[in-house]
Amino acid sequence: MKHIYIIGTGLIGGSLALDFKSALPDCIIYGIDKNEAHLIEAQELGVIDQKATYEDLPNADLVVLAIPVDVAVNELPKVLGKVSDFSVVIDVGSTKQAICKAVDNHPKRRNFLATHPIAGTEFSGPKAAIQNLFKNKTNIICEVEKTASKLQEQVLDLFLKIGMRMRYMNPESHDKHIAYVSHLSHISSFMLGKTVIEKEKNERDIFDMAGSGFESTVRLAKSSPEMWTPIFEQNKQNVVETLEEYIQNLSMFKQMIVEDDFQSVYKAMKDTNYIKQILNGIH
Amino acid sequence: MKHIYIIGTGLIGGSLALDFKSALPDCIIYGIDKNEAHLIEAQELGVIDQKATYEDLPNADLVVLAIPVDVAVNELPKVLGKVSDFSVVIDVGSTKQAICKAVDNHPKRRNFLATHPIAGTEFSGPKAAIQNLFKNKTNIICEVEKTASKLQEQVLDLFLKIGMRMRYMNPESHDKHIAYVSHLSHISSFMLGKTVIEKEKNERDIFDMAGSGFESTVRLAKSSPEMWTPIFEQNKQNVVETLEEYIQNLSMFKQMIVEDDFQSVYKAMKDTNYIKQILNGIH
Repeated sequence: MKHIYIIGTGLIGGSLALDFKSALPDCIIYGIDKNEAHLIEAQELGVIDQKATYEDLPNADLVVLAIPVDVAVNELPKVLGKVSDFSVVIDVGSTKQAICKAVDNHPKRRNFLATHPIAGTEFSGPKAAIQNLFKNKTNIICEVEKTASKLQEQVLDLFLKIGMRMRYMNPESHDKHIAYVSHLSHISSFMLGKTVIEKEKNERDIFDMAGSGFESTVRLAKSSPEMWTPIFEQNKQNVVETLEEYIQNLSMFKQMIVEDDFQSVYKAMKDTNYIKQILNGIH
Repeated sequence: MKHIYIIGTGLIGGSLALDFKSALPDCIIYGIDKNEAHLIEAQELGVIDQKATYEDLPNADLVVLAIPVDVAVNELPKVLGKVSDFSVVIDVGSTKQAICKAVDNHPKRRNFLATHPIAGTEFSGPKAAIQNLFKNKTNIICEVEKTASKLQEQVLDLFLKIGMRMRYMNPESHDKHIAYVSHLSHISSFMLGKTVIEKEKNERDIFDMAGSGFESTVRLAKSSPEMWTPIFEQNKQNVVETLEEYIQNLSMFKQMIVEDDFQSVYKAMKDTNYIKQILNGIH
């Protein structure tokens, strides 16, 4: 794992680059990005060691695709076509069915490992890259059996070194569960922000009255639409299903208030307090 | 401001007690709570100096009502009936119309000041009390003109000492705006938690896959149903209106996804990114 290529030098790609460099001090991190300004910035910030292009990929030990999921689906077959037989390519996208399907019959399928390191912030670009973003976080690995064992081992060993725990799942299960615990959170936050912005034309009122609770629930509404639009597109069916259930729960809650059924309002909240126990498990 | 009585020694009452004690080292903080265990705990934790009862209220310079808003509406007239002419009583509830109406014709109306110090955490009880919770936060003061000037001054001076900035608003405006920036956030978070708990029967999946984004959006679902049920009841009309707008925005977003209109999905998120600028204003 000496020559590591990061395609997409933003929040996730850049943060992985920083952690990989710490874990493997002798490695060289090459950056590839269609946004030349990001590439220069990534190098200036020390996120990558050198700029590179697809022409350099035959030299790679490891290639990381950290680009929007719709672009990844198009680029992965090309990248696999460039790398050597001893090289491993991973993606880190928030959807797993489309990417696995895109290379299911690729002659170099055994050189690919589908991963989803679950970590992030609401910021984006090379300057959003931070060290230890992945420490004590979960990495979902899909279709591990389709990757050459030796290559699997190298990648999983590296993720262990940067502090991640691995979980194995098929792409269908991944996309279904992640719709609930990640994609829906983003939509609820974006729409909360939208509702408040539309209503509070005088932003002074928001500024003055918004407490830390509002800030916490609306934090994800700062996230990158470039990243999130293709995620909702690729995971359309699951996202629509979670949204329908969420809207139904909100409508029921509203109806209880309309009907002055505050015993049910209380009970719905009391039952949901159970989330404390679940969240305690996260840390 | 030597004898300060805190009715309700939980998160807000307890945190105010700690800050008032720091601001006025010579004051004595008396605690009144119908929950005897909380009262003992508050004294053991040093949140209050002494236990007290309503019979002691004629001795008070300042009384703080920090109890659920439905209880406050019942207790405030009684408390006002007990205190001396030189005493000031404040409430700190998250709704302001009902409490102001409850004492509008009270003979001691000029001894009452309606306040809403906007701060909190998702925890509750005396052990949730923390110092500096109110520093650099906003305190909404309602119907300031109905309180005796000298008493206003004493209270506002104390809130300034603990680091709060004051804003003046009528109770109707307060309840309307706070529905958007606080009450709706709590409901969106509770219903998000409910949706995920219902679906993910196997909590191991949530535990493993939930990232910091989910945790942030669902944090408020840990809040106290005892406090929040009467808030939604008292602010019913505004809360229902915000919920209708939120549900409508979610339904529109869902429809865009269903219709593969991802340009509109992108635009809705891009426009909402503007929340960044607003949130930057909060700090």
